[in-house]
Amino acid sequence: MSVIERLTGDLARLPGIGPKTALRLVHSLMKGAKEDTRRLARALVDLADRVRSCGVCGNFSEHELCEVCSNPRRDGTVLCVVEEAYEVGAIERTGQYRGLFHVLGGRLSPLDGIGPDELNLASLLERIRRSEGEIEEIIVATNASVEGEATAVYLEQEIRPMGPRVTRLARGIPVGSDLEYVDGNTIAQALVGRREMSI
Amino acid sequence: MSVIERLTGDLARLPGIGPKTALRLVHSLMKGAKEDTRRLARALVDLADRVRSCGVCGNFSEHELCEVCSNPRRDGTVLCVVEEAYEVGAIERTGQYRGLFHVLGGRLSPLDGIGPDELNLASLLERIRRSEGEIEEIIVATNASVEGEATAVYLEQEIRPMGPRVTRLARGIPVGSDLEYVDGNTIAQALVGRREMSI
Repeated sequence: MSVIERLTGDLARLPGIGPKTALRLVHSLMKGAKEDTRRLARALVDLADRVRSCGVCGNFSEHELCEVCSNPRRDGTVLCVVEEAYEVGAIERTGQYRGLFHVLGGRLSPLDGIGPDELNLASLLERIRRSEGEIEEIIVATNASVEGEATAVYLEQEIRPMGPRVTRLARGIPVGSDLEYVDGNTIAQALVGRREMSI
Repeated sequence: MSVIERLTGDLARLPGIGPKTALRLVHSLMKGAKEDTRRLARALVDLADRVRSCGVCGNFSEHELCEVCSNPRRDGTVLCVVEEAYEVGAIERTGQYRGLFHVLGGRLSPLDGIGPDELNLASLLERIRRSEGEIEEIIVATNASVEGEATAVYLEQEIRPMGPRVTRLARGIPVGSDLEYVDGNTIAQALVGRREMSI
């Protein structure tokens, strides 16, 4: 197999990249400077060698603890629970959250054979237990899918008896949306969650 | 800058990959085996180190001559002229072509400052001249765009006086298309190029 075929095959295995896109990427790399291709290769090696999971929360990290967990100015009384490590970044980029995180590594999905034991759930409960009341609130930020909702309900049942408040990200109209194009379920949730306007 | 940010940035520089797709790719690599990421990196290094242009036709090659040029069973009387090296593969995959290739490395586009001197045109004319009549036909397979057509006309004017026939890929209805969805220009070309049906 030629170098080009091998690289095209490797790229085509990535999600959202088919054989034609892979070939286009290879061609673009061929047209560009060889140094750019080598830099991309080095970044991939660095990813494989240096990035791992934070020992406390499961976020991506280049050290034993991730940037959030190792930051003493973060608010240790609030934990935000997300499904995947890359969702930490989505919340961090808002600049609105000062608490810590916990990454489940997925969501409950019995049909796919993913039960509580397949998620980083025991470590979450252990974190809450060991905080001895310091953790006051768990914000459940699982996705707004059927499995995400089921996971949220399960978490609520497990965590509430331990003490902390369990909250959920608000459901509602996305900012900037035309009501006309928002689906009925979302509008229904936005009605249920409606809030008093302040002047 | 973190490893993930660096890799995301490098990936987002590739055509058709934006910051969100890049992040999704990085996440997919993180979820997969580290060995897959390292193999992708090695394939990229191999591409940078080993793949170059064929000294005769300009096709991608891992040696001085590409697989087509170094194959003694190819028909040296026909040259197919394409704009880009990756288009050689599109024609090779049909299994219908036994001749050789010549890669222009682009197409005439005066607005972008690409004239005859910016293309591998002198080497094409030199190839024809040195063949001393052995090359009997030049198949012009530039794209069906305005620039591709202009390039084809230019090639025809340069090559015809030197002896070889100059032919052009047929224009017509793509195989499998519904006539209803084919644009008018293509139907017009298909009418002009209509052929007697054989029984």
